[in-house]
Amino acid sequence: MSTTAQIGVTGLAVMGRNLARNFARNGYSVALHNRTASRTHALMEEFGEEGVFVPTETAEEFVAALERPRRLVVMVKAGEPTDAVIKEFAPLLEAGDMIVDGGNAHFADTRRREKELREQGIHFVGTGVSGGEEGALHGPSIMPGGSVESYAALGPMLEKISAKAKDGAPCVTHVGPDGAGHFVKMVHNGIEYADMQLIGEAYQLLRDVAGYSPARIADIFRQWNTGRLDSYLIEITAEVLSHVDAATGEPFVDVVQDRAEQKGTGRWTVQIALDLGVPVSGIAEAVFARSLSGHAELRAASRHLAGPAATPLGEQEAAAFADRVEQALYASKIVSYTQGFHEIAAGSDAYGWNVDPGAVARIWRGGCIIRAAFLDRITAAYEAEPGLVSLLADKGFADEIAAAQDDWRAVVAAATTQGVPTPGFAAALAYYDALRAERLPAALTQGQRDFFGAHTYRRVDREGSFHTLWGGDRSEVEA
Amino acid sequence: MSTTAQIGVTGLAVMGRNLARNFARNGYSVALHNRTASRTHALMEEFGEEGVFVPTETAEEFVAALERPRRLVVMVKAGEPTDAVIKEFAPLLEAGDMIVDGGNAHFADTRRREKELREQGIHFVGTGVSGGEEGALHGPSIMPGGSVESYAALGPMLEKISAKAKDGAPCVTHVGPDGAGHFVKMVHNGIEYADMQLIGEAYQLLRDVAGYSPARIADIFRQWNTGRLDSYLIEITAEVLSHVDAATGEPFVDVVQDRAEQKGTGRWTVQIALDLGVPVSGIAEAVFARSLSGHAELRAASRHLAGPAATPLGEQEAAAFADRVEQALYASKIVSYTQGFHEIAAGSDAYGWNVDPGAVARIWRGGCIIRAAFLDRITAAYEAEPGLVSLLADKGFADEIAAAQDDWRAVVAAATTQGVPTPGFAAALAYYDALRAERLPAALTQGQRDFFGAHTYRRVDREGSFHTLWGGDRSEVEA
Repeated sequence: MSTTAQIGVTGLAVMGRNLARNFARNGYSVALHNRTASRTHALMEEFGEEGVFVPTETAEEFVAALERPRRLVVMVKAGEPTDAVIKEFAPLLEAGDMIVDGGNAHFADTRRREKELREQGIHFVGTGVSGGEEGALHGPSIMPGGSVESYAALGPMLEKISAKAKDGAPCVTHVGPDGAGHFVKMVHNGIEYADMQLIGEAYQLLRDVAGYSPARIADIFRQWNTGRLDSYLIEITAEVLSHVDAATGEPFVDVVQDRAEQKGTGRWTVQIALDLGVPVSGIAEAVFARSLSGHAELRAASRHLAGPAATPLGEQEAAAFADRVEQALYASKIVSYTQGFHEIAAGSDAYGWNVDPGAVARIWRGGCIIRAAFLDRITAAYEAEPGLVSLLADKGFADEIAAAQDDWRAVVAAATTQGVPTPGFAAALAYYDALRAERLPAALTQGQRDFFGAHTYRRVDREGSFHTLWGGDRSEVEA
Repeated sequence: MSTTAQIGVTGLAVMGRNLARNFARNGYSVALHNRTASRTHALMEEFGEEGVFVPTETAEEFVAALERPRRLVVMVKAGEPTDAVIKEFAPLLEAGDMIVDGGNAHFADTRRREKELREQGIHFVGTGVSGGEEGALHGPSIMPGGSVESYAALGPMLEKISAKAKDGAPCVTHVGPDGAGHFVKMVHNGIEYADMQLIGEAYQLLRDVAGYSPARIADIFRQWNTGRLDSYLIEITAEVLSHVDAATGEPFVDVVQDRAEQKGTGRWTVQIALDLGVPVSGIAEAVFARSLSGHAELRAASRHLAGPAATPLGEQEAAAFADRVEQALYASKIVSYTQGFHEIAAGSDAYGWNVDPGAVARIWRGGCIIRAAFLDRITAAYEAEPGLVSLLADKGFADEIAAAQDDWRAVVAAATTQGVPTPGFAAALAYYDALRAERLPAALTQGQRDFFGAHTYRRVDREGSFHTLWGGDRSEVEA
């Protein structure tokens, strides 16, 4: 057995175990550690033949097994467990060593930890890892933050174990300093929420307005998956919708409780966007839709509320409607990504990360849950114009939305008229229309605020802040 | 000059000064203190004749001037200044004394301060005060949290200086323990954001779809203000819209920059709702709309985006459309309040506050920015059914929405088709339709989550958590 390993993984639950195996299967020697040694033994027993592993039992043994500078990957639950592991290992490490946190940490925690460890000369690398268990084993999309030096030492290994896009490019990049990696992973998950909500709305429209069965809707998603919507989420939607429940013979989707759960990164994406002043209405509606679905008592008390009578479509109309839904889904998806990339840009500005949005799109093309052909387009848009202020400012996307907008509007209007909830489609369209509006009612809002709170306003025709003496002669004063 | 005062106010900027004057004008003797004594002198000089004031210069003098148990009202900026004042005064106080924080504090800070001071035997009373400068002077809506004992000592004074509803009831109640008062004030502000956004959307529709001038729209709001929309915000909307800019002769609303600002309580309302799992989509869209309006570069880059051609209405159609907008505005407003009161109920549950929603509606009927005839209705709904799970479960509101819904849908569909952004109206309608839906696409979401992350799902027909072996033979296992 080798006594030094190129990398170590502590925390051998399913994600950590699979990541350790991924390193080993790619030819790296991997030290193993877990709080309870039984997991380490289990991994050795089941997968010990896959590569060079160095199982260890104590923290001291684990650290001693690593070649220097040490690369120590932590795969434990986000929050206190991460702090506990850092507290245990940091005193055993030396300047130049690296701790890689591959959990779903809040980027603010990552910033705090990075700063504390930097003072001890240790590189702390908060790293987003997307792709679930399968991705961890066969190639995830990896979003490391942290120092340039740490990426120099880790990058080649991460590139080797990461997913590869269709053009062969590894799905990993140095996202930026300190919390940049976890921030970008958070927004990835927020976009994932929005993608799933939009797909859900498309499904509901095809079911309730077009009158299609789940099996038929699965075929439509399969069809969509051959075009510009080609993506992992569309692919698995078709799988889920075509699945039949063995116990009842009913479509699987009809026997599942319509109560969506969530773990927190979607919520964080919206909360941080609010702090940054970035409108992420599509992501917010996706998070709210999940919460709403779980309020059983509220829903039960609301079932009797008045709605419009259903007007099922004929066969030909239904087919035309399905095509329009594809346009609406695609246009709404462009808006979700526009909002998500706006948040990344705002976070990058606020924290001085200098994140390259094109590189982010590039590493999301494989391995992660939102992987999609669409991300090639985003990559290309940012490569063509690195200072792109918004995805909607890209001519290609603007042209596609221009072509889609009549159908998009028709679908939202149909949903509105027929009582099918499409909060995501509607929020995306309202965002689009607000951005292109010559004038917004925000001028009235400012007038009201000045009226009741003397909050002042700006004028369109000259500089300065002004206040109208609303309670007096209504003359204007400079504030 | 009296040497003991019944109450003291420290922090004599405009809100503190007006609140001190309000106490004095209601017959209370008021000790005055400010970090820089000049404000104290100015108050005495200008308004010293209005009642019995006890001006003081040092913290020690101020505290000595108060009868026991002391009632000390702090009117400084939320955040660090509040902590600084507490740190200065707490050591000078005795068990049973009260510190009243009338600023816009985050309820979590109020909880922390209340706990710290309680350990010293001091009552800390975080108190929402709404109504701006004028309200502070002539009668605000007051939302005190804190202990029952402190309310026994403060309540009668607050009732005297508060606004009175049309039926004469004082607009103050003991909201609940520790942070309950500031929490409810936060949600009040969130609802205010939503109200203002909905009014803005109604204005924009009347302008762009009906083709009306601001002056004519002002008349419509004046008309609405005589009916069920009767409220302070509708009233001042008419004032702002009918105002003509003296410098240009243009409608005032057209010379104001359409870039709305915000101070933070709307944002908090959404962030806390996300933590509590409460969908507040209408409030969120209002906050996002303000942020969006300020992104000048993004808007400039989006002005060229494709939109539908405008189709102005004829005179008769326009009048009918305006009536429909009233219905849409009213229905959307019911949803905003439904979401806000849901958040109050969730906060009350989470922190054990036992907030009475009917009492909250009652004290919002006068003094505050969202005061409205509508709040009588909400008060009545909760009085009739204290355990009302949602405002939408009230028969009166459900009937009104049933009567409004066709018009509501028609207005949102028209906005959608004609490219006028109505994120608030649309979000409210989507919430309504989602709540009354028999089935939601959340079932598909759970299926997807189980597919890519083995997150499990529940079934409609039996208890337990289940997982489908998607990568295997697709049989179902109990998780």
